[in-house]
Amino acid sequence: MSAPVTTGFDFAAYLAGARQRIEDALDAALLPERPESLREAMRYSLLAGGKRLRPVLCLASCELAGGDPDLAVPTAVALEMIHTMSLIHDDLPAMDNDDLRRGRPTSHKVFGEANAILAGDALLTRAFEMVALRSPGVPADRLLQVVGELSLAAGAPGLVGGQVVDLASEGQAVDLDTLEYIHIHKTGALLRASVLSGAMIGGADDTLLEALRVYAHGIGLAFQIIDDILDVTASSEVLGKTAGKDLTADKTTYPKLLGLDESRRRAEGLISGAAAALDPWRDRAGPLLALAAYITARDR
Amino acid sequence: MSAPVTTGFDFAAYLAGARQRIEDALDAALLPERPESLREAMRYSLLAGGKRLRPVLCLASCELAGGDPDLAVPTAVALEMIHTMSLIHDDLPAMDNDDLRRGRPTSHKVFGEANAILAGDALLTRAFEMVALRSPGVPADRLLQVVGELSLAAGAPGLVGGQVVDLASEGQAVDLDTLEYIHIHKTGALLRASVLSGAMIGGADDTLLEALRVYAHGIGLAFQIIDDILDVTASSEVLGKTAGKDLTADKTTYPKLLGLDESRRRAEGLISGAAAALDPWRDRAGPLLALAAYITARDR
Repeated sequence: MSAPVTTGFDFAAYLAGARQRIEDALDAALLPERPESLREAMRYSLLAGGKRLRPVLCLASCELAGGDPDLAVPTAVALEMIHTMSLIHDDLPAMDNDDLRRGRPTSHKVFGEANAILAGDALLTRAFEMVALRSPGVPADRLLQVVGELSLAAGAPGLVGGQVVDLASEGQAVDLDTLEYIHIHKTGALLRASVLSGAMIGGADDTLLEALRVYAHGIGLAFQIIDDILDVTASSEVLGKTAGKDLTADKTTYPKLLGLDESRRRAEGLISGAAAALDPWRDRAGPLLALAAYITARDR
Repeated sequence: MSAPVTTGFDFAAYLAGARQRIEDALDAALLPERPESLREAMRYSLLAGGKRLRPVLCLASCELAGGDPDLAVPTAVALEMIHTMSLIHDDLPAMDNDDLRRGRPTSHKVFGEANAILAGDALLTRAFEMVALRSPGVPADRLLQVVGELSLAAGAPGLVGGQVVDLASEGQAVDLDTLEYIHIHKTGALLRASVLSGAMIGGADDTLLEALRVYAHGIGLAFQIIDDILDVTASSEVLGKTAGKDLTADKTTYPKLLGLDESRRRAEGLISGAAAALDPWRDRAGPLLALAAYITARDR
């Protein structure tokens, strides 16, 4: 598809800049961690690269809301911590039993199951600490709003709920409703929190938050559809994880339910809808619009 | 030892009343949970009885600070959720591999490892939701302070850090410093958070918070020494968990390092110190003083 973005700004430079800022902040966030073995396990997974899509969305939406994106950096770090925690726990032998993540052995392969579980717990908890105790210059009521949004996204109404239904659906015929339930909870909730939390820190009003909910829902579901498509079409080498695993595990995916073409059309429709929701803020929405396009265009 | 409390109030009635209030709130906190299987696993562990010491401490210290204890109920629930989560994860096969907890099969024995891990994750996250989104009537800055305190107690600087060192020390000769490190983190941190968070909601000033830190440190360490003593002296039937396990697992305990008598003396000294710290607030400290005495007098 052609990119729906016509803003003149340099997205590649924007993305590189935001990512660098985030890598630095991630690195600094775990420096004083003790005991050492725990710090090592937390850093191993948190600093393993990745697209940093959630933190970038957070900074971008803070800017859209008129806020200083620097004030959103601790929350951006918190989002990546929650994301990383969910990957560590999902990879465990008792769950998806994955050996490879981001091209490297998974946490429990390197540090053992107990330390992997605990590193995940520590990252999840540290995420809330980042917002509550390490976010200078942001009013308490905004930070509390962010804590609430993160708690919904990470817990039973989000990541955990999605993972429970995902595990329960393994080896079963799953309909489109259940598939969307899984994705809206497992992927969508944290992407929504990424977009909303940045805007909350930036002081967004309810109208903007509502528009951003529509945007986040669109990119969240599109993101997962693309993920499903990539799993069918890309190789392990490009993805850095075991490709085709969904098919071998007899897992229901969008391509399986709708076919590749219809899946692509649906993802593009969702991205267009997401972009349309931001129309009233078009002047300042360049980064978020480019990120939406980036999600559909990515090859990993 | 004789109880150091000379206040005239009826502690048994106070404790029963506070516990009932907490049981009701715990029951209500998970009612809308989905998916059902997750809710069931969360409720199984959260509503399994127990002393509810942390929530009671929270309500009592809110009252001491001059606050309405009703306002602290959601935080009291959050504390019990974090405590329960740590028990679920500690019991996992990859950690302490316990089959019995509070007289019932542990979570992973009933729901499987994956669901036990996820129920713990969901309880931890829900704890922060209780404070951020389900604590009406409390100013945002106080709630944010509570979120910060809970995050420190639950994460690497608290529960998780203690458990990591505890696991790493298994089968090794451990000195008193390491033993105290483990206890201060594994047990002490959340007891401290229980005492401080209630006071924060009640609007405590820095002088009171500092005194409560001393109180909490004393009862926290005493609590663990008593736990070690009980493990030597009490039967499985009374404890509701596998007694003598610390000895069989060749685990370092206070009685092993110091002997039973010196361990008891040390616990009593800590409790006296805790009580002394509250001297300036003696008029209103009845419940907290009685709770300190209760900790040393308990038989399970």
